[in-house]
Amino acid sequence: MSSHLLSVDSLSRDYVEHLMQLAGRMEPFAQRRKVTRVLEGAVLGNLFFEASTRTRISFHAAFSRLGGSVCDTTGFTFSSMAKGESLYDTSRVMGGYVDAVVLRHPDQGAVAEFAEATRVPVINGGDGPGEHPSQALLDLYTIEKEFARLGKRLEGAHFLLTGDLKHGRTVHSLIKLLSLFGPLRITLVSPPGLEMPRHLIDLVTSRGHRVEQRESLANDFGDLDVIYTTRIQKERFTDEMSETFAGISQDFIVDRAFLDQRCSPTTIVMHPLPRDSRPGANDLNVDLNGDPRLAIFRQADNGIPMRMAIFANLLQVEDYIERDAQDVRWFVPPTFGVDDRTL
Amino acid sequence: MSSHLLSVDSLSRDYVEHLMQLAGRMEPFAQRRKVTRVLEGAVLGNLFFEASTRTRISFHAAFSRLGGSVCDTTGFTFSSMAKGESLYDTSRVMGGYVDAVVLRHPDQGAVAEFAEATRVPVINGGDGPGEHPSQALLDLYTIEKEFARLGKRLEGAHFLLTGDLKHGRTVHSLIKLLSLFGPLRITLVSPPGLEMPRHLIDLVTSRGHRVEQRESLANDFGDLDVIYTTRIQKERFTDEMSETFAGISQDFIVDRAFLDQRCSPTTIVMHPLPRDSRPGANDLNVDLNGDPRLAIFRQADNGIPMRMAIFANLLQVEDYIERDAQDVRWFVPPTFGVDDRTL
Amino acid sequence: MSSHLLSVDSLSRDYVEHLMQLAGRMEPFAQRRKVTRVLEGAVLGNLFFEASTRTRISFHAAFSRLGGSVCDTTGFTFSSMAKGESLYDTSRVMGGYVDAVVLRHPDQGAVAEFAEATRVPVINGGDGPGEHPSQALLDLYTIEKEFARLGKRLEGAHFLLTGDLKHGRTVHSLIKLLSLFGPLRITLVSPPGLEMPRHLIDLVTSRGHRVEQRESLANDFGDLDVIYTTRIQKERFTDEMSETFAGISQDFIVDRAFLDQRCSPTTIVMHPLPRDSRPGANDLNVDLNGDPRLAIFRQADNGIPMRMAIFANLLQVEDYIERDAQDVRWFVPPTFGVDDRTL
Repeated sequence: MSSHLLSVDSLSRDYVEHLMQLAGRMEPFAQRRKVTRVLEGAVLGNLFFEASTRTRISFHAAFSRLGGSVCDTTGFTFSSMAKGESLYDTSRVMGGYVDAVVLRHPDQGAVAEFAEATRVPVINGGDGPGEHPSQALLDLYTIEKEFARLGKRLEGAHFLLTGDLKHGRTVHSLIKLLSLFGPLRITLVSPPGLEMPRHLIDLVTSRGHRVEQRESLANDFGDLDVIYTTRIQKERFTDEMSETFAGISQDFIVDRAFLDQRCSPTTIVMHPLPRDSRPGANDLNVDLNGDPRLAIFRQADNGIPMRMAIFANLLQVEDYIERDAQDVRWFVPPTFGVDDRTL
Repeated sequence: MSSHLLSVDSLSRDYVEHLMQLAGRMEPFAQRRKVTRVLEGAVLGNLFFEASTRTRISFHAAFSRLGGSVCDTTGFTFSSMAKGESLYDTSRVMGGYVDAVVLRHPDQGAVAEFAEATRVPVINGGDGPGEHPSQALLDLYTIEKEFARLGKRLEGAHFLLTGDLKHGRTVHSLIKLLSLFGPLRITLVSPPGLEMPRHLIDLVTSRGHRVEQRESLANDFGDLDVIYTTRIQKERFTDEMSETFAGISQDFIVDRAFLDQRCSPTTIVMHPLPRDSRPGANDLNVDLNGDPRLAIFRQADNGIPMRMAIFANLLQVEDYIERDAQDVRWFVPPTFGVDDRTL
Repeated sequence: MSSHLLSVDSLSRDYVEHLMQLAGRMEPFAQRRKVTRVLEGAVLGNLFFEASTRTRISFHAAFSRLGGSVCDTTGFTFSSMAKGESLYDTSRVMGGYVDAVVLRHPDQGAVAEFAEATRVPVINGGDGPGEHPSQALLDLYTIEKEFARLGKRLEGAHFLLTGDLKHGRTVHSLIKLLSLFGPLRITLVSPPGLEMPRHLIDLVTSRGHRVEQRESLANDFGDLDVIYTTRIQKERFTDEMSETFAGISQDFIVDRAFLDQRCSPTTIVMHPLPRDSRPGANDLNVDLNGDPRLAIFRQADNGIPMRMAIFANLLQVEDYIERDAQDVRWFVPPTFGVDDRTL
């Protein structure tokens, strides 16, 4: 009866579209125009066995905005597990305490193992190099919202995915999710050695999408609708890669010059965050701050309605949301406009 | 006017029976069939100066299910106390912030000292080698529920307590609580050097119970109603004890073979958790997982209604619980059945 | 439209008086006689990048008592910031998740930088050696309440500020706030080298107050209305200062003998807490515990209504508080009386 959200692999196009539509219904609550009490009395176990303040707070706030209570656990050592407790025991016990679990765990597969032992819905909040499905869903939701605003359609859209495409679980999950729609044109740009894994390219190609790979941003890509950037994690480089990369690192930085030269006014730039803003970092450049094409903060904002949608779906309260709604009376900050310069 | 829950020593049989009955009234709320708002606006200070994720979450969820808000503090260093603040000052300040306190502290007696300085109810969540009264109460509540299900009575029941009976505060508190009822037959099995302290055996005997001590599980105990196992903490052993124990360690493991040979289908197995599930651990064997006699997860579940009962009693809202109740609308997972194999 | 609470510098006398009056309206809710749901659905990001359990719980409880939900983050490392995320990015993201932020940060100015990037109200919970405005406001509120009880007026009152007046941000903020009222008589007593900074004395003097400096408590100060003590932080001393101080340290301890000899029955003693209660500590003496002139715990209590007032003001729900009020049904501990000996 209960179901989990463990991986994007198991998601059908219908289910994804349903979550998108449900996230849309959550907007008045996420934007603090309305308040609901639909999860009153429900308790979320927000278990982060690996630190991730941003994701933890996003899930926390989403559950709270549905009227539920949240119990956070953070830190690398879970005291019971340090005493030799199995994931099975932990899961069985947690399932008796709370109504839903968000679990981030450093080991791939650990969340699925946890989910097997419990009857309460479990959401994978990231399992090491494995999955982080709610991030991919909020990314897709962002694309859909931005396209609606710009009068674009997903069919035929052109995506540029850049950065460390080998290690980034975010881009892996996103490309799988995108491949359910389309057909799309997807251009992949990464330094040598950090290419998107072959099996993912094959999967996407087999579903009728057009995929191209490039080794630098110094190309004419034609019209771009979405640029999805991820940080190049130099700390994972071999010595040889570091040498190669030192000479070409400027070719992978998405900045204002790149957008002004090669993109249209309706290209949007996304990033899973956090980005490294320190001087010399090979990450999305801060000179784009204030540019309306920079969608990264709208993207982060979208985590709230999407995670609310996930909770509402898994806890089966979709039908009660609107009938429970009341207007908010407290101070409502203006929602972030589409023109980032107005901020 | 206010009272605390610091130790099982101060609990009368009448009060314990009242808490048991109150916990029963909490079941619809603990099992997510009903929701109450009776502690709305109340704040719990859930202060864990020693890590214990399980116990912390159990108290957190129990308070939340009564409609209250919870403020957690975790970790070995409490910043103010690290600056030389006394327990007296901490307690006086906390009493002005919150409506109830759960305190776990590494030092025996610290919780009682804290409670003396405040007017808000304080619950001992474990003070080092001292007390952990809510655990003993949920253990007794579990025995009562299981016995009701099996058509048994507490009078004349036969308990087997095994493991480290010298250091385990859990079995100390439980045996004191059990001694208020009965008369019972209690068999104690522990390795040499880890016997139940003499004064506890004397106390229980003086109350008319029959107590026997054995050095191994390789005995015919006759009919057993409850086996309460605790981990043998080898890390506390002297060298001599380690040598002795190495040759006899298999004699202290409760597993499926032991149950099938020496117990009836209505014997239940309890454990305060966490148990060590690592290979070679001298703890309750995982081969019992799925056996309906394994009551350890039902036991953990019972922590919620029992802790709700404790809060409802100390905060004096017992009379308002039912009249405040509403049906839950969110997804209600099937409660764990008595047949553990159906999970 | 939105505004923050970053510093006492920007506060007008009118605004401060408004907050005082608003805090008074919060008393029935802070004292658990009434409950409100006015911030239902609102989420507070309670971000403590530097440990401060007391202040964190105080803000947490205040927000909870208005009906809101709180998401705590504690610890010196904020995981995203450790990965090179800027305060700007952190702030933009948090502003999309929560409705208000309390931020404690080790670096002076960091909170103001954070506040610039967001539209949700930000409260400075202490930025290193910088500001801690809610502490100064609750101190002033305490003085006003105590004076009202004692039939005193702020005009012409005599304050003794003692301890480390050089480093204590608390006394800096308080003296600035006090200087909006009066005229007052302010006596400063600190060991050589730990005097109140000159620019603050000049500011206060320029506003018409009478300021005197002394090097020891062994003086006849005349009538004292308020003694505000702070801990002398010997760990910050140079070797020379340590030597000097060793010979005079007894001259700076406020204790019962000092009060009995030099103060009236209506003098009150304040301290920002925590105080060091260890033997030999040069801090407010524990022999005053139980003396009704010791206002330190009433002072801590006052943090709740004052912080509720700050939230209600910044989130613009002042007009809805009373009309949303319900009587509390749970156990209401007797509020701390003015006679501390009755506790």
